[in-house]
This record gives sequence, C-alpha cells and structure tokens, in this order.
Amino acid sequence: MSIEKVNVQHKLNLFTDHWSPKIVGALNGQHVKLAKLKGEFSWHKHELEDELFYVLRGSFIMEFRDRRVELNENEFLIVPRGIEHRPVAAEEVSIMLFEPASTLNTGDQENDFTKHELDWI
Amino acid sequence: MSIEKVNVQHKLNLFTDHWSPKIVGALNGQHVKLAKLKGEFSWHKHELEDELFYVLRGSFIMEFRDRRVELNENEFLIVPRGIEHRPVAAEEVSIMLFEPASTLNTGDQENDFTKHELDWI
Repeated sequence: MSIEKVNVQHKLNLFTDHWSPKIVGALNGQHVKLAKLKGEFSWHKHELEDELFYVLRGSFIMEFRDRRVELNENEFLIVPRGIEHRPVAAEEVSIMLFEPASTLNTGDQENDFTKHELDWI
Repeated sequence: MSIEKVNVQHKLNLFTDHWSPKIVGALNGQHVKLAKLKGEFSWHKHELEDELFYVLRGSFIMEFRDRRVELNENEFLIVPRGIEHRPVAAEEVSIMLFEPASTLNTGDQENDFTKHELDWI
C-alpha cells in the first residue's frame, strides 16, 4: 500500500506550460489536477461533468455567456455540467481542479487546446 | 442558475467547533467540506469512500496502523477506502475535504464524534 502525501507547491514547480493540466491524485473516479493558466481559453461545456476550480496563486476570470466571476486566491467555483464557460487569465494563475477522470479539458470542443492524455506528476 | 464562488477563508470564519465538517460545495456526487480539527479523533475506516484531506492552515498527523504522515499547509493526502486511519492535531488545523456525499465522518464506527447530518455553510 502506498499512501503518499502531495505537496502542491512542489508539484507546481515541476511544470511551466499553460493550459495543460497534470494529474496529482485520484479518488472515487475523480481526478485532482494542477494547471497553470495564462491568456484566453476556448468556450466549451462538459455534458456529464461538474468541474471545481480552486485558485492556489493569482487570479482569473471565469466567463459565462451571461456573466463573469473573478476568482482570487483561496476561492473556488463549481461549474455545473452543461454550462458553457471560458477561463481567462490576464496574468499567470495556478489552480487545482477536482473533476471526474473522464473530463476532457475542452469539453465538447476539439481544438488546439485539447489534451486527450494527461500526465501524472 | 446560481453559480457562486466560495471564499474559503470567509467560510472558515463562520464556525469554531472541532470535528464537525461543514459542506461548502457539491459536484458529481461528491462533497467539498471544511473542518477544524484539534485533538485526537477516533480510529475508523470507510468501506466505500476514498477521502482527500487538504491542509489550509496549520498541520496535523494522519495516523495509520503501521505508520503516520505529517501534513502541513498546502499538502494533501488521499486515504483509500478500507484503510483504518485517525487524524491527530496537536494544535488547531483547518482542512478541506473532498469525498463522496455518502461519507460518514466516523466511517464504520459510531461514537460521540459521529455526525449524521452536516450543515451547509
């Protein structure tokens, strides 16, 4: 049995690329992921998955079709399945994600941001 | 549609009791909870649920039958289902939990710590 703790800052130090979530944990069919965001992502939705975005460092805007929510450090937002959204980060932000292991980063869209295979770090 | 962000520090300011998790979010059949721990909890396991413990402020020890893991700020540990564990906090620690909505805090044990109904805050 291997039960190892995860130091989030140590894991964040292992990568620099944007919009490329890394898996750092798995439980109950869900993944815990870390990601660094900068710039504008693509509009998308997830048909079957709710997504939690937790801000570790920095801030970003989650855009919806009818509003926008600014997320700062130690704040989180749950985006329900079926709702179109787009993260926009003026400056680099580090986030933690909780979502089903089945979640594709670009949801119902396929584009240059799409990552079918995510690395464990 | 209500999509409201959660400020973790604001939520932590809303309660002072120990060993009494509060629900702050729900997604994909899972709950996000906040709790403050101080002292020794009871040994227990969860037959069907993996549990994630994320330290927001302070530190504590997760004891297993054969080892112990010290968890500090911004570190998390996933305790797999079926594994006996006991959190011990020499000083107050604030944590975030991510686990199935079905999770009972004392798992397979019923004792003075058991909370069958958790408050949303």
